[in-house]
Amino acid sequence: MATQNETFKKVSEEKRNPVQQNPYGPNPADFLSNVSNFQLIESTLREGEQFANAFFSTEKKIEIAKALDDFGVDYIELTSPVASEQSRADCEAICKLGLKAKILTHIRCHMDDAKVAVETGVDGVDVVIGTSQFLRQYSHGKDMNYIAKSAIEVIEFVKSKGIEIRFSSEDSFRSDIVDLLNIYRTVDKIGVNRVGIADTVGCANPRQVYDLVRTLKSVVHCDIECHFHNDTGCAIANAYTALEGGARLIDVSVLGIGERNGITPLGGLMARMIAADRDYVLSKYKLHKLRDLENLVADAVQVNIPFNNPITGFCAFTHKAGIHAKAILANPSTYEILSPADFGLSRYIHFANRLTGWNAIKSRVDQLNLNLTDDQVKDVTQKIKKLGDVRQLSIDDVDSIIRDFHAEIATPIIAPKGEAAGAVDEEIAITEEPEAKRQKTEN
Amino acid sequence: MATQNETFKKVSEEKRNPVQQNPYGPNPADFLSNVSNFQLIESTLREGEQFANAFFSTEKKIEIAKALDDFGVDYIELTSPVASEQSRADCEAICKLGLKAKILTHIRCHMDDAKVAVETGVDGVDVVIGTSQFLRQYSHGKDMNYIAKSAIEVIEFVKSKGIEIRFSSEDSFRSDIVDLLNIYRTVDKIGVNRVGIADTVGCANPRQVYDLVRTLKSVVHCDIECHFHNDTGCAIANAYTALEGGARLIDVSVLGIGERNGITPLGGLMARMIAADRDYVLSKYKLHKLRDLENLVADAVQVNIPFNNPITGFCAFTHKAGIHAKAILANPSTYEILSPADFGLSRYIHFANRLTGWNAIKSRVDQLNLNLTDDQVKDVTQKIKKLGDVRQLSIDDVDSIIRDFHAEIATPIIAPKGEAAGAVDEEIAITEEPEAKRQKTEN
Repeated sequence: MATQNETFKKVSEEKRNPVQQNPYGPNPADFLSNVSNFQLIESTLREGEQFANAFFSTEKKIEIAKALDDFGVDYIELTSPVASEQSRADCEAICKLGLKAKILTHIRCHMDDAKVAVETGVDGVDVVIGTSQFLRQYSHGKDMNYIAKSAIEVIEFVKSKGIEIRFSSEDSFRSDIVDLLNIYRTVDKIGVNRVGIADTVGCANPRQVYDLVRTLKSVVHCDIECHFHNDTGCAIANAYTALEGGARLIDVSVLGIGERNGITPLGGLMARMIAADRDYVLSKYKLHKLRDLENLVADAVQVNIPFNNPITGFCAFTHKAGIHAKAILANPSTYEILSPADFGLSRYIHFANRLTGWNAIKSRVDQLNLNLTDDQVKDVTQKIKKLGDVRQLSIDDVDSIIRDFHAEIATPIIAPKGEAAGAVDEEIAITEEPEAKRQKTEN
Repeated sequence: MATQNETFKKVSEEKRNPVQQNPYGPNPADFLSNVSNFQLIESTLREGEQFANAFFSTEKKIEIAKALDDFGVDYIELTSPVASEQSRADCEAICKLGLKAKILTHIRCHMDDAKVAVETGVDGVDVVIGTSQFLRQYSHGKDMNYIAKSAIEVIEFVKSKGIEIRFSSEDSFRSDIVDLLNIYRTVDKIGVNRVGIADTVGCANPRQVYDLVRTLKSVVHCDIECHFHNDTGCAIANAYTALEGGARLIDVSVLGIGERNGITPLGGLMARMIAADRDYVLSKYKLHKLRDLENLVADAVQVNIPFNNPITGFCAFTHKAGIHAKAILANPSTYEILSPADFGLSRYIHFANRLTGWNAIKSRVDQLNLNLTDDQVKDVTQKIKKLGDVRQLSIDDVDSIIRDFHAEIATPIIAPKGEAAGAVDEEIAITEEPEAKRQKTEN
């Protein structure tokens, strides 16, 4: 091996990245990126009400709206006041709460709906109409000329009331691109606050999203809002890529609840965004309230928090394999891009299993306030791994093995054993054999 | 409005897309795309074993391996045989099953591990080593020269045994790009079967992934495998984008189980891929076995299928809002990009709620084999929506209202009411009032 080459490598490594940059931050090539300047339209009380299990009482809606407002969402979107009489009354009640978040309601592109909506006291109206061939044929049955005419009428009307107006296509990714750009330019010229892109069937992929947003950005001057369903699991990634392309606002709901398997989840998007721009996210949103917010909504719609939920899933900050545990103990950033403390949560090193390593066990030995040398920890780790091969281990099992091992060392020869360790010790004795190998773990 | 323009639009709409193309298919601009030519490395028995709750007995491992093989996965990856004695015995046992899927094991980049691995009977060995500054500093503490030397030694050794070899970096997206490309080119020249990119901390975003894969594709001739953790919710999208960029193989696990909140889930990736290339996916994988496979693993690790799981979540094919239900009944493609029948599942129109519409109720009336005119259905729909405003509805509630309404019409004046409908009818009577408005629903 060329030592000159080695020297060069060493020097160049030191000179590289004198200032450590966040590799997950906004892409400097994206001049239009809003990754560090995004807003949330929280739709648990609109899209979320379309979730199969959702039935929100007025009191529950108010409780959720207050919690969302406290969390810091920019907008709260409510079910159309024409959906039912109670929907209208609830909309009016939430508008009267005096929240910091702006209140929106979501209606069809129709004057009948708009007239009711503007009387509820909302800060803005979100108008939507299906623009894909599918929806034009099987839903409302109207052509693009009709759509444009209705849109203009509704937009002018809502604007005349001095409140915000958004125009969104529905099923945007199966709509004709020329039709789409035409209608967006038309409504932008009238002066909407924002236009919306909606992946209504949940099937757009990130590069498609980026391309459409970038193209639209060159056509309209207003803000772009995006709404992504999660049928094919891309709703968080699509939202992020939309922001990279220049979208400003993302529709979310708590736990993603909505039609079918829902939309971009608030918590998952927070995970994605904090990795990209921690300062911005922490300055706007009370992340330590996320868990309570999710529990509130999960209870209301009678679901469990998914085991693999970003951030609040029970294992999101649990590290198991020996090699992971070792590095996490040395520096959490090795295997964690998110800091659990940012969300008021804590990290957990899973040491009670056969994939454990001696660093994880050493950490536990320290927690138990016992004194063992590294070699002794390695020995006891082998005992633990052997029992872990035989059956699932509890923390008590491991603690017993450690305490027993420690007792044997501390009190030489025929000292009586601790009670708790008795049964476990026998199980180990069966499989035990000398083993001086280094720690064997998984990556 | 210019009628000439309208005529032009109509003609041009008819001439457009004479052959309907799948808008979610492979991007024709991606010459290197493997969206229609991908393979799965199924890692439930390796990455999945690192899930906090996982403890697989030998019997359970064999049951899972057989189910994965039956499903049609291309590779099955197993925990390192040096993790524990039982891990080694299990690896040998699974190799002896004679499955169609190739069996891999996953080891550290070290001769001690490689020597054990090649004796187990596996078809290939997946080697991994941390290449990021973080892992080099806090995990193994080696420099890139050491990594290259170890890699060459291990690769030559495994190749000499006539089995497949993959070399993967770990934490690839926080590794120096020049270091990465250097080591990948080195191992490609020796002749590995594939090189792996791993987003170990779960924080890469789709466009980063696309860029890295495209760049790597220009450096190596072998296949590219990708492994994505899901900490920020992008594991499915990243996998898809990697295939677009030219990666060939994706690591998955059932329900995504793995370290922390896991990796790209098998089911979620199937949802994503079938939307892109249904024929390819159906030709390779037995999708109707997905639900059983997920239930098998969920039981083994004692978790529930998340309510919002792609495809198999309880509401994945449930449509609720009136406008959605109307269009779905006319043509399921309006709001469904996935066909539940492809997965042996069925669609459900949720009609028992205040967001329901008369099309959904009409469908239910037909199911009940009752005769009502459209106007009558609209009337009964208003009754249902009113009760839905008061409390959560069950299917029985709605059926009672419909049957009662039908009975009133069928048997004029003082006919006795059906028993089941009695209580419900009273509740409705309180809020009932004449309403001739058209159906009011949410989008």
